[in-house]
Amino acid sequence: MGRLQYTPESEIQNRIRAVQTQLAQTPLNGLMVTHHTNLFYFSGTSQDGVLYIPKTGRPVLMIRRSYERALKESAIEDIVKLSGLRDILPNLKERYGTKIGSVGLELDVVPYNTFVFYRDTLLPGIDLTDGTRIFKQARLIKSEYEINLIRHSCSIMDQAFSKAPEWICEGKTEIEIASRFEAFMRKSGYGGCNVRAFNRDLFYGNMTSGSNASKPSYFDGPVNGVGLSPANNPIGAGWKKIQKDEPVYVDYSCVIDGYTADAERIYVIGKLDADLVSAHKTALVIQEELIRLMRPGTLWSDVWDLSVRIADEQGLLNHYMGMGEERVKFVGHGVGLELDEQPIFARGFDLELEKGMTFALEPKFVFDRGAVGIENTFAVTQTGVEKLTAYGEDIHYI
Amino acid sequence: MGRLQYTPESEIQNRIRAVQTQLAQTPLNGLMVTHHTNLFYFSGTSQDGVLYIPKTGRPVLMIRRSYERALKESAIEDIVKLSGLRDILPNLKERYGTKIGSVGLELDVVPYNTFVFYRDTLLPGIDLTDGTRIFKQARLIKSEYEINLIRHSCSIMDQAFSKAPEWICEGKTEIEIASRFEAFMRKSGYGGCNVRAFNRDLFYGNMTSGSNASKPSYFDGPVNGVGLSPANNPIGAGWKKIQKDEPVYVDYSCVIDGYTADAERIYVIGKLDADLVSAHKTALVIQEELIRLMRPGTLWSDVWDLSVRIADEQGLLNHYMGMGEERVKFVGHGVGLELDEQPIFARGFDLELEKGMTFALEPKFVFDRGAVGIENTFAVTQTGVEKLTAYGEDIHYI
Repeated sequence: MGRLQYTPESEIQNRIRAVQTQLAQTPLNGLMVTHHTNLFYFSGTSQDGVLYIPKTGRPVLMIRRSYERALKESAIEDIVKLSGLRDILPNLKERYGTKIGSVGLELDVVPYNTFVFYRDTLLPGIDLTDGTRIFKQARLIKSEYEINLIRHSCSIMDQAFSKAPEWICEGKTEIEIASRFEAFMRKSGYGGCNVRAFNRDLFYGNMTSGSNASKPSYFDGPVNGVGLSPANNPIGAGWKKIQKDEPVYVDYSCVIDGYTADAERIYVIGKLDADLVSAHKTALVIQEELIRLMRPGTLWSDVWDLSVRIADEQGLLNHYMGMGEERVKFVGHGVGLELDEQPIFARGFDLELEKGMTFALEPKFVFDRGAVGIENTFAVTQTGVEKLTAYGEDIHYI
Repeated sequence: MGRLQYTPESEIQNRIRAVQTQLAQTPLNGLMVTHHTNLFYFSGTSQDGVLYIPKTGRPVLMIRRSYERALKESAIEDIVKLSGLRDILPNLKERYGTKIGSVGLELDVVPYNTFVFYRDTLLPGIDLTDGTRIFKQARLIKSEYEINLIRHSCSIMDQAFSKAPEWICEGKTEIEIASRFEAFMRKSGYGGCNVRAFNRDLFYGNMTSGSNASKPSYFDGPVNGVGLSPANNPIGAGWKKIQKDEPVYVDYSCVIDGYTADAERIYVIGKLDADLVSAHKTALVIQEELIRLMRPGTLWSDVWDLSVRIADEQGLLNHYMGMGEERVKFVGHGVGLELDEQPIFARGFDLELEKGMTFALEPKFVFDRGAVGIENTFAVTQTGVEKLTAYGEDIHYI
């Protein structure tokens, strides 16, 4: 896009209004937004500060640093400069009275010591409680504006996939190829991938080849790779050299203007064993059947169940979404400002798809010799789902 | 390095022994290591699991996923496979008796809800308390092995700096150049930068040019840039095109095998105003004077004070470590497995340098027209400090 993308005022107003409607159904009197991702979602800025959203009335954005940038970036009307976090309480009392009552925080990500600092030092007298569920719910349905941003991330992803055949060469290391793929997304605006779960940092994604694709890892994905070191982020591209006649598995996030695309394609230099080619075709069949199934009202768990049924019918269950013990038990996950959002297509998630949900669907098969399969990013429409990534889905022979 | 670097058994044993010596001076009976960075430090793996370090005796590494990789990576003797986190307590009782007592957790990073899950569900009857100080202290002094890993990260950083003149061209965007610089480090083993503080994620570092260097940001650095979007990581390289006769400020982390180098250099296409050239020279003088000052026993706060004194003598105080209100109040920070370690060279930190501490020292001056200055990574030796980054420190004219 080549320019800074500011969240429009109408978007911010709609988001605040929607979460206040939800708040009305709870005993909470307000939400205190402290984590940068939700702060960006509700205010349009991720500068250093907090946003307080009352049950009714106007929210206040309190910024420690940089106030100047927050003013430029945020469509929130009431923005104040904090000289320190101790100014939060007087600002709240001035606006909402001395009895603030019960306030929801993002206790799924706020560190324990930070919580204690808020409870005992910054906001004494306010009953701080868990607002995780409301925050998650608030971001579940994406607006057209958000879907367009995901669409843009998807288009960059497609461009990267289309250039990958230039970069994938026999004898090059996974990380050499990965660095080219990532640099392309980076110069197109990639700003870092957000994963919300504790200890689940992800660096770009995953490029892995042949047998490396079946190596186990700490990460809850069907295919993870071995990474560069046992230290941080020990998944993804490693030091292995790409060989002929093995699948090169390219699975990346693309995060531009904060919004996440997630997709995967398979490349092969030379040819591939018939059983892997056949498994790849089965993954495409699963995707097509799931696309036929999915529409507003479809249960998330039904998506998983149908995918398992097809994998089983094809005799591929023990390779589906991993190998043996390392198989994961979902076939897709929501994407948005974070990579690990809802919906989750897994057993037990008996919730309905709704228009505006966005997700990655990823039926994959893993063998000792490598991984095959497909991943695309989708949005739920009024009558079905729309695929937002478009690059060719067959195995790409180089 | 081109291969996976496993932490030697002697390193792990020394680290465990050192932290047990510290534990002996506290009322704690043990430490529960849950965050991936400390888990890697004390066990050599960052797979999904926890490490329990008792006050005396043998630690136990409990792994949920992948047990196979943890066995390969970790020199801990007692490694068990968890079928779920509820297996932690029986494993502890089996080894350390039914009265575990008081246990320290990393409450600076463990999310509140995760803490509650440990306290109420996983470890009822165990008194969980804050071990943050002990964990920080444990990682403060680096071994020769660790310093050599930082040295390696520094050498990759130096190579990237030496190649930068090929990439920096008039009319290219900051992010185009940044993507080349980053790709070079990436294919050399860069695996992601770890920042411990809440809301302080950093994506690689910072490449910014001319006036962009003086733009304010949420990040506590002297120079931050504007980034690609107000969404996540709104600092670093942006969409601005590099011009002639302005400073191109290149400040990066380089994290290989988990260990962080941090350095900065200045490039100029054409020529630079005399006052900026002079400020750059003053930064080099400050660095030299601080190097002369620093040795085991030097107070961290004295390093900051001396740097401020020199900046003031040169009439540059209002440009030192930022501009006007946006100035930051430190001239360096520890580096290791994370970017934001101790020592911190700032007022109030009246602690002594010790042999084996590693840090980045970064005297910089910021003007409307751009930033100049220097940053290198150092280790404290028996008699002084050793500079681990080596690329030429004068302004590089292209």
